[in-house]
Amino acid sequence: MDFALDKRLDDSSHFIEDWPLCRVSLKSDRTWPWLYLVPRRGGIREMYELPAQDQVQLIREIGMAQQALQTLYTPDKINTAALGNMVPQLHIHIFARYKTDAAWPKPVWAIQTDEIPYTETDKLAEIQKLKSCFEKLRQGE
Amino acid sequence: MDFALDKRLDDSSHFIEDWPLCRVSLKSDRTWPWLYLVPRRGGIREMYELPAQDQVQLIREIGMAQQALQTLYTPDKINTAALGNMVPQLHIHIFARYKTDAAWPKPVWAIQTDEIPYTETDKLAEIQKLKSCFEKLRQGE
Repeated sequence: MDFALDKRLDDSSHFIEDWPLCRVSLKSDRTWPWLYLVPRRGGIREMYELPAQDQVQLIREIGMAQQALQTLYTPDKINTAALGNMVPQLHIHIFARYKTDAAWPKPVWAIQTDEIPYTETDKLAEIQKLKSCFEKLRQGE
Repeated sequence: MDFALDKRLDDSSHFIEDWPLCRVSLKSDRTWPWLYLVPRRGGIREMYELPAQDQVQLIREIGMAQQALQTLYTPDKINTAALGNMVPQLHIHIFARYKTDAAWPKPVWAIQTDEIPYTETDKLAEIQKLKSCFEKLRQGE
């Protein structure tokens, strides 16, 4: 089954780049620095449904996204979650949390916040910053 | 640094068994079938801090826990999350969601529920059921 990004994930994020397994996007809400990782495989809802090789690549890519957030945004904690109750296509949320943020120390889903869109300029700058960081991490490997 | 399970994780769960990497426990709240996976390594807060070999083992063990929940409880979706804002020791929540549950399709953290403890008999039965399922999955590998 071919990969096609679910429309709801596409509509709520900005494309950054494709990694060997995942499509990497920036959530279109600047409340928290927030990445989506979506394995580019069709028909997958749960991690264990991926072939073993893809699972290994997934954890590697999750780690890379976490490291990038840690490096760029120096959060107090990274949060990582694959829920999928609304959009069953396997997607992993990886985002930065701060002791000063509106939900801390609760999960972000415990409070309601209005989405804060990026301006076009900020969006492009943010994506460029992330791409440079990913590139440095790749070279450091 | 030696591994010691954080007291808050210990107090909120029942020990099931140790896997090659993780301590596996049952959350002491029967609202949702809910497992904790805690890598038995000291001083780890984020997945990427684990050695590469441990990361591979972690995704394998996450997959095994997900498969066990799917097999035993036939949920509509598995939810998987590593948050750690309150308890920074790396721990992964893996739990079963149903279209009929109180929070669906929202994340469980969007609602407040009272914990429902297991009776001693039910707890032992549940642990036994999980251990048997894990054993079958191990043999099927």
